[in-house]
Order: sequence, then structure tokens, then C-alpha cells
Amino acid sequence: MPVPDEQIFPHATGAALSTVEAHKEPQELVFYAGWFCPYVQRSWICLEERGIPYQYKEVNPYKKEKHFLDINPKGLVPAVEYHGKALYESLVLCEFFEDAYPDHKPTILPGDAYIKAYARIWVDFASKSFLPAFMRLMQSQEQDKRDAARTELYEALRKFAAQVKGPYFLGEEFSLVDVAIVPWITRDYILAENRGYKREDVSAEWKRYADHVEQRESVVKTKSDKDKYAEIYGRYLRDEAQSEAAKAIRAGRVIP
Amino acid sequence: MPVPDEQIFPHATGAALSTVEAHKEPQELVFYAGWFCPYVQRSWICLEERGIPYQYKEVNPYKKEKHFLDINPKGLVPAVEYHGKALYESLVLCEFFEDAYPDHKPTILPGDAYIKAYARIWVDFASKSFLPAFMRLMQSQEQDKRDAARTELYEALRKFAAQVKGPYFLGEEFSLVDVAIVPWITRDYILAENRGYKREDVSAEWKRYADHVEQRESVVKTKSDKDKYAEIYGRYLRDEAQSEAAKAIRAGRVIP
Ligand SMILES: N[C@@H](CCC(=O)N[C@@H](CS)C(=O)NCC(=O)O)C(=O)O
Ligand SMILES: N[C@@H](CCC(=O)N[C@@H](CS)C(=O)NCC(=O)O)C(=O)O
Repeated sequence: MPVPDEQIFPHATGAALSTVEAHKEPQELVFYAGWFCPYVQRSWICLEERGIPYQYKEVNPYKKEKHFLDINPKGLVPAVEYHGKALYESLVLCEFFEDAYPDHKPTILPGDAYIKAYARIWVDFASKSFLPAFMRLMQSQEQDKRDAARTELYEALRKFAAQVKGPYFLGEEFSLVDVAIVPWITRDYILAENRGYKREDVSAEWKRYADHVEQRESVVKTKSDKDKYAEIYGRYLRDEAQSEAAKAIRAGRVIP
Repeated sequence: MPVPDEQIFPHATGAALSTVEAHKEPQELVFYAGWFCPYVQRSWICLEERGIPYQYKEVNPYKKEKHFLDINPKGLVPAVEYHGKALYESLVLCEFFEDAYPDHKPTILPGDAYIKAYARIWVDFASKSFLPAFMRLMQSQEQDKRDAARTELYEALRKFAAQVKGPYFLGEEFSLVDVAIVPWITRDYILAENRGYKREDVSAEWKRYADHVEQRESVVKTKSDKDKYAEIYGRYLRDEAQSEAAKAIRAGRVIP
């Protein structure tokens, strides 16, 4: 019998543990997180980048505990409580931090309306084109499906990489476009070790971008020890994962 | 042989035609649109609501003409040129109009950071949960698949309707949440006439909301004559449509 998804190492480790420990005090913003979750990492990176005071609370979203469903009826991390009111969805949270904490610099979205919209196009691209291909490659079992998913992933990443101004997507400034994709860059070793993916096979631009963005301090500070991810991703690699995302990919549905 | 998708009546009719004719003069904002397209209608509603000066240009996106692919490499309407620079994606455009024209009232996103984020959660819901179910119901051919898609659609709409403050989603103010969903409300007669969908079967709240929001002036002003949509939706109902969206639904992929 497959190991149920709620079997997860119970807390952050490594660099992420220090970050968690620095955020135990009560704050007006409570951040409900799973240390292992790439969507959580998006919002967490924004909190860290912008120096927003927050209290970190670890949740195991697979347990679907009542107190957590009261905060996010979708039962997914990340979620926040802000002055006692709930919000969720990683990218919505990143934008919320911009709007609710305008004086915390640097902002993660450019001030110029045109560049901001341009950034949002590529955030949308990460969600619609990159992420489903990444998940399909991870979950696919037959060789022909893996090859098709890898090709699709490479095509998406080449389109993305062709737009990178360097060193970050928009140029000198780290932005929401980088935030939207970097958690999966820090996890692409899973595809490298198991699915024949190589950054350099995508393109030289992609490799340069990926090698650089994963070293950003806020990214490193929100990462746990590599070995702790192995159990979770093993379930994806055997296509046994029962997360909402894994089920959606299997059923040809939108990742919720 | 099925009629190719580019067979579309060439221009807006009815109320939408008057709106088009009032926007023929060159402006710094050029709106590339297809009169028939629900995504276009989203952005168009925002332009009309906020009184933003724009020049309307009709595009047949199925022709994938070079001049249009230079503006939107995805080859989809809506798209804009703003001071000669291109942007696309309906919801990105709606937000861009907020950011680029802050003095044009009413705004379509609430000023309060929390309510804005709450609104974005439900815009996201419209894209991820409502829209794919709507499309699946329209395209499905076998009775059991239609029943499953209808059930799924009703469930999504009930969740949405349960959050409607009334008369609009957020209360007295028309917002981006209404904009994100209303083009498909004005088109739900297709499901009513062909797929056994009834607003009142969803819930009394849904029927009240739908009956009200479709009467909004900006919605009415961006609608063409009903008979002109029939050829396009006939292709969807027979599952012969070759649009990117139709192909995505058929393949179990994300609507691009
Ligand atoms: N669209 C959501 C996705 C969040 C998500 O899928 N989180 C996962 C953990 S990485 C989760 O909570 N899964 C619980 C489940 O699938 O039951 C977001 O962007 O925040
Ligand atoms: N995600 C896009 C979707 C736009 C879209 O699919 N537009 C359709 C017309 S309704 C189109 O241009 N289709 C051309 C094609 O599919 O080739 C948006 O929100 O703007």
C-alpha cells in the first residue's frame, strides 16, 4: 500500500529551520505554511525579501484539519490570517503583501504599469505552461510520456529563458516572475536525477538564469535539507501522490 | 468536413457595433479584439466601465496573421498596444487599465488591500474552476460526460454564489470578480438550450446574481446579436472547434 501523503517530516530543517525559529512570535500576520511546499516558498520568499513581520505556523495540509479548513476551505497551504481574516493562494498572497505593506522595500512588482503587466504575463505563463509540464514529467511513468513531457517542459522553459533580461527575469531587479518559478528551480534536481532533465539541455540562457536565481538569499533561507524532500517526491515519481495537484495532473485537470 | 474556425462573422453587430463605431479614432491605446470573444469582453467591459479612451481594432485570431502574432505571440485576442508596446491576457489587461489609468473612475478593483486579495481569490476561482467546467459541458458529447460536467459546473457555481454579497459579488460595487465571469453568463443560454443547464437549478442565489449582472450597461454595450454567435458555438457543441481553448479542454490541458 502506498504511504499516505500526510506522512511528511514534521518541520523545516537546515536554513529554513533558522528562518522559522526567527518567526515564532505572535504578529498581526500569521503565515500558515508547509516547509516542503513550493507554493508556500513563493509567498515565504516575498515575506523575507520585503522584511514583513510574520508568525510562521507549520500545517500539514494533507490532514485537512478543521481549524485549517476554516482558514482555507480549499485546504491548501500557503494561507494567512491578517488581523484575524483569512487569505490564500500563493500568488494572491504575494500581491497582497505588496498592497498591504507598501512601505516595505524592495517591492516585488515593478512600479511602472506597463512593466508590471508584462511581469504578470510571465507569472501567468509559469502557472499555465511551465508548472503543468514540470508536474507531468515528474508523474509520468511510461518512457514515451516522459519524453513528451520533457519536450514540452523544455519548450516552455526556452520561451521563458528567451525573455530573461538577466541576471533576473526583468533585469537587475528580482521580481514576482522569479518568485513564481524559482521554487521549482530549486527542486529541478528531482527531474535531473530521475527524468533525464538537464538545465543545459534547455538552453545556455536557462542554465545561466537557473544557476543564478536559486542562490538568491530569500530562496536559500526558505529551503530545508534535501534528504527531507525525498519521501514526498518519491510519491510523485511513482505517481502515487494523492495531493490535489497530483490528482489534477493525473485527471487532465487544472492544478487547483 | 468541419467548417474551419476562422469562419466567423466579420464584425460586431447590435449594441456592440455602436460601441465599436464610437471608438474608431486613433488613440494611444489600441484594443485588438474579436467581437465574439468572451475574454475580449472582459477587457472591453473594463475599458467601458472606466471611460478609458481606446481605438477598437477587429482581429480574426484564428487567421494567425503575422502583424497580430508580432503583438501577441500566443495569437490570442484580446491584446493591446499602449504607446506602441504590446500586452495581452484578458485579466492582465484589466489590471493594467487600473494601474495605467488610476484617475479613471470607477476602479474595478477595491482600494482595500484585504478585499482586493479576496477579490483576486475569486477571479482565480473563475479561471480554474468555473471556466474549464463550462467548456467541458459545452464540448462533451456523451450523456454521462455531460451529466458529470454539469454537476461539476453546478458545484463550482454554488460555491461562487454562496459568496455573492449582492447585488454584485463584492456588494454594491461592480468589480473584477464580476468581470471575470459575466461574459460566460451572457453566453450560458447556449448551455440552457443544448445541455440541460438552468440557472435556477444551480441555486436561487446564482439565478438572482446572473439575472442582475448581465444587465450591467458595460456588459450590454459589448454584446453582439445573438444569432451571430450560433456558428461559433455550434462548433463547440459538436466538439469540432479548433481554438486553442477547445483543443486544451479536449486534451486535458490548461486553457492557454
Ligand atoms: N494554487 C495553490 C496551490 C497550493 C498547494 O497545492 N499546496 C499543497 C502543498 S505544496 C497543498 O496544500 N496540498 C494539500 C493537498 O493537496 O491536499 C497556491 O498557489 O497556493
Ligand atoms: N487566456 C486568454 C485567452 C484568450 C482566447 O483564448 N481568445 C480566443 C478567442 S475567444 C482566441 O484568440 N482564440 C484563437 C485561437 O484559439 O487560435 C485571455 O484570457 O485573454
